[in-house]
Amino acid sequence: MSSENTATSTSDEQQRRERALTDRVIASWAGTSDERLKEILTSLTEHLHAFVRDVRLTEDEWAKGIEFLRAVGDITDDRRQEFILLSDVFGVSMQTVTVSNEAVGNATEATVFGPFFVDDSPEIPQGGDLSNGAPGQPCWIEGTVTDTDGNPVPGARIEIWEADDDGFYDVQYDDDRTAARGHLFADDEGRFRLWGLTPTPYAIPHDGPVGALLEKTGRSPMRPAHLHFMVTAAGKRTLITHIFVRGGDHIDSDAVFGVKDSLITDFVEQKPGTPTPDGRDLGDRSWSRVRFDIVLAPDNA
Amino acid sequence: MSSENTATSTSDEQQRRERALTDRVIASWAGTSDERLKEILTSLTEHLHAFVRDVRLTEDEWAKGIEFLRAVGDITDDRRQEFILLSDVFGVSMQTVTVSNEAVGNATEATVFGPFFVDDSPEIPQGGDLSNGAPGQPCWIEGTVTDTDGNPVPGARIEIWEADDDGFYDVQYDDDRTAARGHLFADDEGRFRLWGLTPTPYAIPHDGPVGALLEKTGRSPMRPAHLHFMVTAAGKRTLITHIFVRGGDHIDSDAVFGVKDSLITDFVEQKPGTPTPDGRDLGDRSWSRVRFDIVLAPDNA
Ligand SMILES: [Fe+2]
Ligand SMILES: [Fe+2]
Repeated sequence: MSSENTATSTSDEQQRRERALTDRVIASWAGTSDERLKEILTSLTEHLHAFVRDVRLTEDEWAKGIEFLRAVGDITDDRRQEFILLSDVFGVSMQTVTVSNEAVGNATEATVFGPFFVDDSPEIPQGGDLSNGAPGQPCWIEGTVTDTDGNPVPGARIEIWEADDDGFYDVQYDDDRTAARGHLFADDEGRFRLWGLTPTPYAIPHDGPVGALLEKTGRSPMRPAHLHFMVTAAGKRTLITHIFVRGGDHIDSDAVFGVKDSLITDFVEQKPGTPTPDGRDLGDRSWSRVRFDIVLAPDNA
Repeated sequence: MSSENTATSTSDEQQRRERALTDRVIASWAGTSDERLKEILTSLTEHLHAFVRDVRLTEDEWAKGIEFLRAVGDITDDRRQEFILLSDVFGVSMQTVTVSNEAVGNATEATVFGPFFVDDSPEIPQGGDLSNGAPGQPCWIEGTVTDTDGNPVPGARIEIWEADDDGFYDVQYDDDRTAARGHLFADDEGRFRLWGLTPTPYAIPHDGPVGALLEKTGRSPMRPAHLHFMVTAAGKRTLITHIFVRGGDHIDSDAVFGVKDSLITDFVEQKPGTPTPDGRDLGDRSWSRVRFDIVLAPDNA
């Protein structure tokens, strides 16, 4: 079997055979009554075949690919979704987010949702604390929610969730505790303020085949420190995003490609004893503060 | 979230974001020490992202895709390899075969290997019968093995395997019987002749997610009737192929795209009582005969 030949050096007859096969597969989807499904299958066929042809995939390599997918399936269960991790480390999840949230003026950029969101988080009052005992450095989080014309969006629902100082979300705890997650509503001027934790980096699960792939390719399984946000308001496109800690470890090598320059934010360190915005007494603890001004796109964007 | 916008109508900023993300993922593979793996991952990234961008994949569609892959993983075990079926019905298996067996003069075309080959098949003498009790119409199979210059290839090893009249291979039987498979060696003039069964169509396993996909897209799970061949000889490229029954059902809609025009062959029906080539007495049974002249490419092709 040949491996020297590349797409550019194949004969006319060989190219005809490869193209004819792709065309035949595409024609096989013609009877799909769901037009959108037909469009997706057609494009997927075109791109998968182009991949096989471009790299001149060998039968051994194909078999290794099949075995890899089987291993991804084998480790997947209700608690572990290795196919999502696989999509994440190829940037396919993030590309889906990107095309689904098109650029609109100065609207805040979206990023990956991640697996750690939970419905029915507790409501936090303005100025409250969402950490609920999770370990970590206190962080004062404040900002505004506006539309792309700069008008405040009073009542916008702001969900925030994050890992604790050890890199774990509450859903990863052994008990059913809710911690380091909550939601609050923007005030009449679109403002919000609350206490959370200064985020820290953590690793995506990497003891499975996706972790082995990262290892083999010299990639890190770490995600840079981030706070998750989901912001919803009537007439606005739902925003699912993070803010990242400027200068933090792994900021240039996010395992899932969630970092956007516009989402890198200053988390300003505060020495112990520095007065807090709301007069809270933190004793001899240091803390940080961050400002995140959120701009929502219209919901027809 | 937008679904009206298409690649052609997105803004410059949106296109910049999408391209930048793809570039970032490709850059992440740069540390891969295995150069071939790097090439494969880079191309796969490029094509998967192009797919997401071309169809403007929504987050719901992405989630459905993830669920589909999970279902493919769930049904897969040592006896059922749904990922191979998935590759097959997208023509990815066949495209791999096509690029791995480039066109060389009049060399016989390759097709999919399939899951039913077994090592250590029994040796059949010239003129013998490989059916070994498997039900079906007797079929006289004969032909030659030559190189691309027309010279015979004496001693070429010819493996043949096929489904019985009910569409089952022996490995699908409840017992360990070996039937309808065997190998023989081309004689001094490169010729071979033996009895087998007239092949019949059968369905690929279709009670899983791949079957559901075929159903949803109006595709048949059937494969047209075929005989499997694997031909090996010193200095020659191994040929893995089928011959198909001209005019047979499903010949234009092979579920796995294995059919090539050059592999469609005349299986000539013989009325009961027609004298057989080797004088075998088939009583009142009908039979068929087929000729397959095999041309092997050199092994550096
Ligand atoms: Fe996270
Ligand atoms: Fe078969």
